[in-house]
Amino acid sequence: MNLPTRIVLVGAGRIATHLGRRLRAKNLRIVQVLNRSAKAAQTLADELQVEWSDQWADIVPNADWIILAVRDDAIADVGAQLSQYAPDALFTHTSGATPGAILAPYCQRYGVFYPLQSFSAEHVPLWSKVPFCVDAANAEDLALLKKIAKVIGNLVYHITDDQRAVLHIAAVFANNFANHCFAVAERILEQQGLPFEMLHPLMEETLAKALLDSPENMQTGPAIRGDMDTIQRHLRWLQDHPLWRTLYVDMSRSINPTLPLDAPSASPQAD
Amino acid sequence: MNLPTRIVLVGAGRIATHLGRRLRAKNLRIVQVLNRSAKAAQTLADELQVEWSDQWADIVPNADWIILAVRDDAIADVGAQLSQYAPDALFTHTSGATPGAILAPYCQRYGVFYPLQSFSAEHVPLWSKVPFCVDAANAEDLALLKKIAKVIGNLVYHITDDQRAVLHIAAVFANNFANHCFAVAERILEQQGLPFEMLHPLMEETLAKALLDSPENMQTGPAIRGDMDTIQRHLRWLQDHPLWRTLYVDMSRSINPTLPLDAPSASPQAD
Repeated sequence: MNLPTRIVLVGAGRIATHLGRRLRAKNLRIVQVLNRSAKAAQTLADELQVEWSDQWADIVPNADWIILAVRDDAIADVGAQLSQYAPDALFTHTSGATPGAILAPYCQRYGVFYPLQSFSAEHVPLWSKVPFCVDAANAEDLALLKKIAKVIGNLVYHITDDQRAVLHIAAVFANNFANHCFAVAERILEQQGLPFEMLHPLMEETLAKALLDSPENMQTGPAIRGDMDTIQRHLRWLQDHPLWRTLYVDMSRSINPTLPLDAPSASPQAD
Repeated sequence: MNLPTRIVLVGAGRIATHLGRRLRAKNLRIVQVLNRSAKAAQTLADELQVEWSDQWADIVPNADWIILAVRDDAIADVGAQLSQYAPDALFTHTSGATPGAILAPYCQRYGVFYPLQSFSAEHVPLWSKVPFCVDAANAEDLALLKKIAKVIGNLVYHITDDQRAVLHIAAVFANNFANHCFAVAERILEQQGLPFEMLHPLMEETLAKALLDSPENMQTGPAIRGDMDTIQRHLRWLQDHPLWRTLYVDMSRSINPTLPLDAPSASPQAD
């Protein structure tokens, strides 16, 4: 089983950029960048020193792996269009939220190549710690995707569409929602003129513990202690911040369902 | 201004234990451990090689600093009782949630010595990174507490009662609620037979970014993108988990208030 030698990268956003750089660094040959916006396509293609186009019909002949690193809601459409020009290629998308089977009506060979990481423009990913979640419609392509993931990373998991859908929900909690907790904390401190840096050590400690043991076992704070005096004092302060107050109530209830808290209908969002 | 030489540690829980060990390691002389439960008092006192008692009236004479590392709801009562025997001592509690002024009716000299960290039994705190939030009713005691904090730690902040109350709310979000997000993620993965370790790199990346820049600027995910297709798919999966579903809705709305989401009253907790 040979690694692909004519890779087409579709998209020029954060995932396309980071994956493109990494594939190139590992001598996996990207031959073209395709992207709706010519400018972004050219920028990335120049960096990778490959061809580019903003027209799907310009796809190079004999592409063997087409990476659809595009918006979730564009995957099916772009796959459908490109498959006309590259019927034999393996198509994979990079989305945590989209079934691989969305490509089944259009592509003979399809799968998923999903790096479970939150990519930002500035930050270089630590590839050895990025879990690659791969899946494919046939066993040979699955083996190929695993092999590629092992070349550019270290952690490889075969994750089905059903598993990945749920994994994505878990990732939303562990990443997006945890980050929002940090953001709310920062905004609260701002209002008292206190520096967010004061909380940095606590945040580091929180994470360190959650990595050592089950975070459920590590839960601390007024909710798990059942300390209603503190909770009521916090809720009084939060009454001018209804979204945060609702979050506080529902978080506390989820941590400790026995707490005697008002139903969410008491909050200003409800009827 | 001399450091205290006859310190009484009241309490034998996690904060008392970690503070006691650290004070001893830095040659600050603890002379006694007082605690309602004789067994816990003895265990800690033996480790620190000091006297102990489970009777307040047994407090050593001429104590100069009395650390009330007791439950929030016991601080006032314990302070009131001990102040009869040690009217000249400096009393401080270690609570993030309790005003220092709660000791004003009983103690001549009072203040707060609050290490902003989440202590667990197993984990040795990295003291150089623990922010000590100190306050006192008079300037001399404030200076003394700052000096002590500098001996046993590195980061010292003068934080008033009002500021500390709000700081504690922020800490609940950044620590307790972020940890609960991790806990929910773990439980969701369990249901699919997926290992929580898959999310560890994402969690580390989330924290690393939140420490580098404002977490608000680092927000990613379906809510901030306004990706309602993904959100609706996630909410369908979460319908068997009403507490988590409510959290998901609240979080998404707090991240992006323009999302067309149901009011919380649609959730099973509401009337």
